[in-house]
Amino acid sequence: LRFTERIQRRIESQQSPLVVGLDPHWNLLPASITALPPGEELLLALENFLWRVVDASHPYACAFKPQLAFFERLGPAGLAMLGRLLQRLEREGLPVILDGKRNDIGSTAAAYADAFFSPQAPWPCHALTVNGFLGGDGIEPFLNFPDHGLFVLVKTSNPGSGDLQDLRLADGRMVCEAMADLVSSWNRDRLDDSGYGPVGAVIGATWPNHMTALRARLPHSLILVPGFGAQGGEPAALRAAFKPDGRGALVNSSRAICFPDTGAPDHACAVSAAARLARDQIRACLP
Amino acid sequence: LRFTERIQRRIESQQSPLVVGLDPHWNLLPASITALPPGEELLLALENFLWRVVDASHPYACAFKPQLAFFERLGPAGLAMLGRLLQRLEREGLPVILDGKRNDIGSTAAAYADAFFSPQAPWPCHALTVNGFLGGDGIEPFLNFPDHGLFVLVKTSNPGSGDLQDLRLADGRMVCEAMADLVSSWNRDRLDDSGYGPVGAVIGATWPNHMTALRARLPHSLILVPGFGAQGGEPAALRAAFKPDGRGALVNSSRAICFPDTGAPDHACAVSAAARLARDQIRACLP
Repeated sequence: LRFTERIQRRIESQQSPLVVGLDPHWNLLPASITALPPGEELLLALENFLWRVVDASHPYACAFKPQLAFFERLGPAGLAMLGRLLQRLEREGLPVILDGKRNDIGSTAAAYADAFFSPQAPWPCHALTVNGFLGGDGIEPFLNFPDHGLFVLVKTSNPGSGDLQDLRLADGRMVCEAMADLVSSWNRDRLDDSGYGPVGAVIGATWPNHMTALRARLPHSLILVPGFGAQGGEPAALRAAFKPDGRGALVNSSRAICFPDTGAPDHACAVSAAARLARDQIRACLP
Repeated sequence: LRFTERIQRRIESQQSPLVVGLDPHWNLLPASITALPPGEELLLALENFLWRVVDASHPYACAFKPQLAFFERLGPAGLAMLGRLLQRLEREGLPVILDGKRNDIGSTAAAYADAFFSPQAPWPCHALTVNGFLGGDGIEPFLNFPDHGLFVLVKTSNPGSGDLQDLRLADGRMVCEAMADLVSSWNRDRLDDSGYGPVGAVIGATWPNHMTALRARLPHSLILVPGFGAQGGEPAALRAAFKPDGRGALVNSSRAICFPDTGAPDHACAVSAAARLARDQIRACLP
C-alpha cells in the first residue's frame, strides 16, 4: 500500500487530517521525568509519556510525527527508545511521518533511505521529511522505496525562512516556488490512482499568501502543514493548503497536544481534549 | 580554543589541509566485516576497520569527517559505536568535523546543537555540516557554542546540485551565491584573530567556476571541499578554494582513503599511502 493511499484512508476513517507531532522538548517535559538520572529509567518514563500521548490522541489523528532531533539529543539509547516507539506505532497500524529533514548526495542519501525505509530499518516509518537543497539525485534513493512517502521542505514555518526561500528568481518565481516545481517534477510518472505522488511538501501555516501560490504549483502533492498551534499559524493558510475537495493536506500540531494547557485533571485527559480541539479547529478550516 | 584556530594549528603542524572522510559505505566494506551476523561483533570489526584508517592516515590529515548516514543506517548500536570512535578521536586530540547536514527551525535546531556540541553531547565533535535552507534562525542555536564550527552547504558536489543551487536570482546572483552571502552575514561580529568566523561553507571540488566566485564572497569562511578523489573533482577548483596565502580551505577525501586501490599488501599500508598521496596532490594545488 502506498503512503499516499494509506494516509488518505486513515484521514477518511478518522475524519481528521491532524498529525500529532511527538516533540519531547526537554524544557517542557515534567520534572518527574527530567529529574531522573540519565539512563534507562528516564527513557522508560519518557517512552511512557509519549505512548500516553499516542494513546490519548490517536482517535483524532491521521498520523504521528516524531521529531528525530529530540531523540538524537538523548544519544543512542534515546534513539533505541524511538525505535521501540516506532515499532509499537507500526503494530497498532498508525501511520508515521518521521521528521528528520535528512539530506545528502545520492550515495549517502541511500544510507539514510536504508535507515528509515528498508525492511530492516532500525527506525521504520511510512514517510520522512527531507531537505531538497541538494537537488534531484539526493531525493532519488528515497524514491526507490515506492510505498514510502517524502515531504520536502518548500516553505518552512520559522521567522527566518524568507532569508533564502523568499528570494526572487530572474524568472519571477521565489526560491520556494522553484522548490515546489522540483517537487512536482519528482512526482512525474509516480502518481497513485487518486493523482498523488510520493513527494509531498512542507509548507508552514504561518504563511497564508505563500500557501495559496504554492498549493497551485503542487497539484500532485500532499502538503504537510506545521506551525499550527504553538507557532501561531493562521486559519487562512490552513484552508489554502487543502484542495477544493477538502483533501491533500495534513496539519501538524506538536507542543499544543504533547504539552496541553487545558486544565484537565490528568495528562491523558488533557492530551485527548487538546487533540480533539485541534481536529475540530482544522475541520472548521476545510474548504 | 575556537574551531577555526584549532584546525589552523593542526593544518600547520601537519602541513596538510586533507580531511579524511570516514564513510563506511556498506557495499565497499570487506566481506570479512559485512558477512558477520548483525550485532556487536560486526560493529566491533567495523570500529577496528575505521580506527585502522584513522591510525594509518592521521599523520597526513588535519581532521576526520565521519558521515552520520552510514552509522545511522546501522541503528542505535551503530551510532553508539560512532560515539566511541568520536571519544577516541577526542582523546587523541584529532579534530573532527561531523557530516550530518542537520537542519530545523530554531527550537529544534537547539536539540541538534545539544546532541553534537554540548559538554554532554553523545556525539562530541568540533564542527558539524548543516543545511542553511531554513535561514538564520535555524543556524543561531549552533552559534551559541562559540568554540564549535559549522560548515553550511553552499554548492554541493553532486551532479544534481544545480537543480536549485544554480538558479539565477533577479539581482543577478545564483542561489548558491545568496547562500554564501548568508554565511558571510552569520559570521559578522564573530571573527577570530585571523579573521575567520565559525561559519564555513561546503563547496564541491566538482565546480571550478563556482569555486572562484564563491571564495570571493566568503572572505571570513573556511571552505570544506568534498568531491576530490572518487567524485572526480578538479585541481583548478581545489586551488580556487584557498586564499592567496594558501589558507582557508580543507579538502576532503573519503572513499579513496578508506577503500584504497593501491596494491599495497595490507589495508593499513594502503590507507597510509593513499592519505599521503592525497595530501601531496592537495599541496600541489596550493596557490
